[in-house]
Amino acid sequence: MSNKVLIDILKIGIKANKADAVCFKLPELSTTVAVSTQNNFAAAPVILSKKNLLKSSPKYILVNSGNANACTGKIGMENAIKCTELLSKKLKCKKEEILLSSTGIIGRQLPIDIISRSINSYKFNFKSNWKQAASTIMTTDKFSKHISRSFLLNKTKITINAICKGAGMIEPNMATMLSFISININLKKTLLIRLLKKSVDSSFNRISVDGDMSTNDTVMLISTGENKNLDFTRDSKTFTILQNELTKVCSDLSEMIIKDGEGATKVVKINIYKAHNIFQAKKTAYSLANSNLIKTAMYGADPNWGRIIARLGSISNINYSENKLILKINNKIIYEKGLQSKKCNLKELNKSMMKKNITIDLYMNAGSSSYTVLTSDLSHEYVHINSAYTT
Amino acid sequence: MSNKVLIDILKIGIKANKADAVCFKLPELSTTVAVSTQNNFAAAPVILSKKNLLKSSPKYILVNSGNANACTGKIGMENAIKCTELLSKKLKCKKEEILLSSTGIIGRQLPIDIISRSINSYKFNFKSNWKQAASTIMTTDKFSKHISRSFLLNKTKITINAICKGAGMIEPNMATMLSFISININLKKTLLIRLLKKSVDSSFNRISVDGDMSTNDTVMLISTGENKNLDFTRDSKTFTILQNELTKVCSDLSEMIIKDGEGATKVVKINIYKAHNIFQAKKTAYSLANSNLIKTAMYGADPNWGRIIARLGSISNINYSENKLILKINNKIIYEKGLQSKKCNLKELNKSMMKKNITIDLYMNAGSSSYTVLTSDLSHEYVHINSAYTT
Repeated sequence: MSNKVLIDILKIGIKANKADAVCFKLPELSTTVAVSTQNNFAAAPVILSKKNLLKSSPKYILVNSGNANACTGKIGMENAIKCTELLSKKLKCKKEEILLSSTGIIGRQLPIDIISRSINSYKFNFKSNWKQAASTIMTTDKFSKHISRSFLLNKTKITINAICKGAGMIEPNMATMLSFISININLKKTLLIRLLKKSVDSSFNRISVDGDMSTNDTVMLISTGENKNLDFTRDSKTFTILQNELTKVCSDLSEMIIKDGEGATKVVKINIYKAHNIFQAKKTAYSLANSNLIKTAMYGADPNWGRIIARLGSISNINYSENKLILKINNKIIYEKGLQSKKCNLKELNKSMMKKNITIDLYMNAGSSSYTVLTSDLSHEYVHINSAYTT
Repeated sequence: MSNKVLIDILKIGIKANKADAVCFKLPELSTTVAVSTQNNFAAAPVILSKKNLLKSSPKYILVNSGNANACTGKIGMENAIKCTELLSKKLKCKKEEILLSSTGIIGRQLPIDIISRSINSYKFNFKSNWKQAASTIMTTDKFSKHISRSFLLNKTKITINAICKGAGMIEPNMATMLSFISININLKKTLLIRLLKKSVDSSFNRISVDGDMSTNDTVMLISTGENKNLDFTRDSKTFTILQNELTKVCSDLSEMIIKDGEGATKVVKINIYKAHNIFQAKKTAYSLANSNLIKTAMYGADPNWGRIIARLGSISNINYSENKLILKINNKIIYEKGLQSKKCNLKELNKSMMKKNITIDLYMNAGSSSYTVLTSDLSHEYVHINSAYTT
């Protein structure tokens, strides 16, 4: 048996004549943990996988695109269970040893008869790679998202393989995004979940495309069980390095999601500095990130700081001191002491905002807390994609 | 002196060679009240008018479009005061007897020298009408908004004249909208403000275009002092009729604002029924009204109920019971018992959603509270309007 995660790509019949599912085969000694959406109407595969993770060590993960199996009631759950039964028979394991993850349209039942036939007649060979997996799970994504990064830990080469998909309904916590990550280390479950949560919290949980939280978001992390020689106690130096490396991978994937946000033409980084506390910093950051007026201004490369300040004024329960606020766009002060900065050349700023990356820095000067959110602009293309009829 | 509100239209030099201001001359016996934005960065004219309303009975209201005089610091306030000084000299009253209201771009100083010259050289004649006033205060509005409605109260003919402007940054409380209303009655200030607040709360405060709250919103109500014979004690039948009539006017103006929402092609009425309490009903209504995924679906006439249910799932602190929820679009049940209703014909629904008005009814079946919000769809045109460069 391999000590690596193995991958197979299937056509299970959700998308006509197209690969629409990925099956991960997990190493015997692997440990798997997951974080998933906080949406109250979490999809059937999300609920089922949570249960299965509590019951046993997973051996396979089946991910499909094209159908989210969300808001599908009892039948949706029965279909999800049926999928695990089909796979377990075929792959000779318990059904509880299979995790499911789905992305695609909400509210439609899985074509379970077609899926049954497809899985029953399929000959698994697990000879695909991460890159192929990344393209198979795409929905409205325009490019596939795959990262493979290696680094040394006590002279041992550690490799993180990770894929994800976006691209709409992106808002914490992790709306409509799926990500699957493997690391060739040996780590017990409690530490692995700690590792994952911390990395997700400062990456996938800090992005927003449209402020809508999905029913299906999931990030799964698999430690393969290799390299047992490494010591990973909670506060060890190796654990810290590992944490940083994983966070980097998750941050890079998050940025890819924003770059590929539905209709996105720009990646906008919103940094809130010197807030009274972290909650105010976070609330401020998301409030700016989710303003359509700000997002359309970014699309138009428009240094319309009035919309930013007006948005701040509308946030309840936070007192912004007009005279203390400093606002920078692309590192140029545009607003201070309650009005437009005299130093600011709007035409130059407009030019610099035509580039793909825009940074908004807001100094609240009320404390020492910071928060950063990545968001995309709001374009014609966003409207185009999202107004298309589903049926 | 007239016992009606008189109107003059001016060019004060904010818009080149275009009428950009309205001056209302208030009857000697009139009473005026106002409600205004709750934005922490309320514009200079909003703050100044609040102060002046406390100090004395207003004799004139000057409304300009093209410049909001918001986020303009000390200079902005000085300029606002200067405007009242200029007018008071010209029209022979105290500067505190003048109210100001502004709409337009945020963060730019008023061209006060040009305004001085314009006002000083202007010969006021107060021969314009409400309709002309309505078109003068337009910004991105596509049509002017004016209502004149008469009704009988104890055989006396009462007339409400009202104008307003929208059309972006619309969200409670009353973002970027101005409205000026007169009624030919005699009512003391306490009752007049009660009348106005109640009507505004069930009209202007229940609309949303893009969830952004403006710095300048104001609704002013003038009772002219006529028809002193009418009895308007707080719980009198006449007061109730008056309240209903004013609410109708405000509701009709609100609907005009939504119809003319930036880029709007549809008016979407969101009714929440049988909520546990009014706060949950309100939070639910606005959460749906401000979802870009729902707004783009409406634009595309797409009965994509999954986005509505997913949005509900993401609202924190409200427990929606999946099996109790009933969702109707255009009066057809589309979701019940946790999944898509079998009775629903999506193609027919799609057809009916191509009309200008869409109704979404959500029955929470958790209590007896209701709330209604009007919103617009999110179109290509919205992006087009709002991504245009300001300078």
